[in-house]
Amino acid sequence: MSRFLTPTLEALQPYTPGEQPQEKQYIKLNTNESPYPPSPWVAAALTADEAARLRLYPDPACSTLLRAAAVRYGLKPEQILPGNGSDEVLFFALRAFCDAKHPVAFADVTYGFYKVWAQLLNVPAHVIPLEEDFSLDPVKYCALSETIVIANPNAPTGLALKPAEIEMILQENPDNVVIVDEAYVDFGAESCVPLIQKYDNLLVVQTFSKSRSLAGARLGLAMGSEALIADLNRVKFSLNPYNINRLTLLAGAASLRDDSYFRRTCAAVVGTREWTERALLKLGFTLTESYTNFLFAKTDKMGGRQLYEALREQGILVRHFDAERTKDWVRITIGTPEQMNTLIETLKTILAKEE
Amino acid sequence: MSRFLTPTLEALQPYTPGEQPQEKQYIKLNTNESPYPPSPWVAAALTADEAARLRLYPDPACSTLLRAAAVRYGLKPEQILPGNGSDEVLFFALRAFCDAKHPVAFADVTYGFYKVWAQLLNVPAHVIPLEEDFSLDPVKYCALSETIVIANPNAPTGLALKPAEIEMILQENPDNVVIVDEAYVDFGAESCVPLIQKYDNLLVVQTFSKSRSLAGARLGLAMGSEALIADLNRVKFSLNPYNINRLTLLAGAASLRDDSYFRRTCAAVVGTREWTERALLKLGFTLTESYTNFLFAKTDKMGGRQLYEALREQGILVRHFDAERTKDWVRITIGTPEQMNTLIETLKTILAKEE
Repeated sequence: MSRFLTPTLEALQPYTPGEQPQEKQYIKLNTNESPYPPSPWVAAALTADEAARLRLYPDPACSTLLRAAAVRYGLKPEQILPGNGSDEVLFFALRAFCDAKHPVAFADVTYGFYKVWAQLLNVPAHVIPLEEDFSLDPVKYCALSETIVIANPNAPTGLALKPAEIEMILQENPDNVVIVDEAYVDFGAESCVPLIQKYDNLLVVQTFSKSRSLAGARLGLAMGSEALIADLNRVKFSLNPYNINRLTLLAGAASLRDDSYFRRTCAAVVGTREWTERALLKLGFTLTESYTNFLFAKTDKMGGRQLYEALREQGILVRHFDAERTKDWVRITIGTPEQMNTLIETLKTILAKEE
Repeated sequence: MSRFLTPTLEALQPYTPGEQPQEKQYIKLNTNESPYPPSPWVAAALTADEAARLRLYPDPACSTLLRAAAVRYGLKPEQILPGNGSDEVLFFALRAFCDAKHPVAFADVTYGFYKVWAQLLNVPAHVIPLEEDFSLDPVKYCALSETIVIANPNAPTGLALKPAEIEMILQENPDNVVIVDEAYVDFGAESCVPLIQKYDNLLVVQTFSKSRSLAGARLGLAMGSEALIADLNRVKFSLNPYNINRLTLLAGAASLRDDSYFRRTCAAVVGTREWTERALLKLGFTLTESYTNFLFAKTDKMGGRQLYEALREQGILVRHFDAERTKDWVRITIGTPEQMNTLIETLKTILAKEE
């Protein structure tokens, strides 16, 4: 820290992303990446001609990508804002719809970045505890007079609300924006995108990092009424109008057009998740009900930290969140069937040592 | 604008980027892009294997890129922070080193984004007028007790300060960060990077968008003491840790390694600039002394707006800044020799009509 740093940043605790080891090869089940490469249409779009065109700025309006996204989601291009990952559009949304006098509400166990952005933006955070079983009680989100962010499905718990429950929250907070972060929605939960036409206070956020195998390209979308998207564009054009590079714009559009590959790979991940669930239950693990590409699991044989470390030693990375309510658990990304088989065999060995 | 927008954003005037027409083909001399493609090493780095690896998050530490940049600039990797364009690192710097009680100072005629970021961050802006001839008097930047941003060379004027003048400003403001935005430095001005070892209050910002022909990849660097860079990383890890996508990390590293291509293309641009300067002077234009890849030019035959429109009609885009001090001028990016020849011939025709 330098002596020039502004006091509001000194106090802040930045987000800790999952490990991204660059050297040693691990079975990487810690950051919810897809085990499958992106659609072959993505590689085909990244031609040598496009590399040469990198001399030119990207289209700040992202027109081609927006047209493809509009077709895919049944929206108008003006109802969509792409960002440098969904992290960026979520940050834009908190800047647009919160301030020092207008707090943001979110769960105690959820994506860890919401509270970091609130601090970065000097926005008060209203943290609402999940129930004992990690479920979210929509009644606790009624008539808050606060901007609301709900990860649905939630991370790291994997649990999902039904659109009807989100709809109740939307109706009970007509004068506040409700942001539904659907990073994991493509693995079995129901999206709120169809509710956009009905509720002008709904903002849905999705990412290309999980179900579209494009974590490395950095692309996310915010979707909502034209007025909400205009607000987000106001932030974008006040911060970084060329926020998405040319190759990511191409990759994103190619991915959106190849719907059959998208559905195939999502289904494969869900199939592997179901196999892994059964195998973990057989090993005595407790699981939450996952609607995502990861499992949230604990065993009474050892703590979450200890399990994380034992797996790491065997070359398998999972994620452990070192907080009171999550300390017994690990979050395990769904990899290929082969990787999950290795995970299960490794767990058998680790647990056998504990007998 | 929606009814949910926070009041501090309503008042804000977002930045207007230069036109990026996606359909019609123009001779595009309006956003200071390079007329040359990036180094062929960039295209070579963007392999099909790398497209497949887009399923994985990028390295949040940007290690490979930082190693290449450290070699190029004679710094330690810990003295460099890459961003999603230099716009992002400049925004990070203002968030880190300014606040409501600690203003930012910059010139009245300079990169238009400084004042937009100040508004977005609720930071008071101290605008210091340039001299009548657009030169910057360093004495006016002494003992300010404010964070300072100086574009050097400046845009759209093209003028440059000598490092000794910047050094005076650094010495006179020991308790404030002085940000030197060197977006255009590779076209003939002297960089302040060598001063980094001497001044812990110096932050130098560069971009890959101009001299490295990578505007479409979005990459910029902030360089300074390890403590300043740690501060910027604090903002980055509180906003968007995966701020640079995998392909841009590869492209940037490849570009940095191909120093000979970099020097050749910069020299070609400077050569074309000199030719264009002579040709414009012959046509009676008034020019500022450019150390950049653009020329700031005016004619007494017509206003800047009129000239911009006449050129646009002939298929040539230049930039006009519609403000009191710049309204007579246009900013012309240096293109290929052929493009500049077309520009000069077109100007001859346009001016002849005014006789």
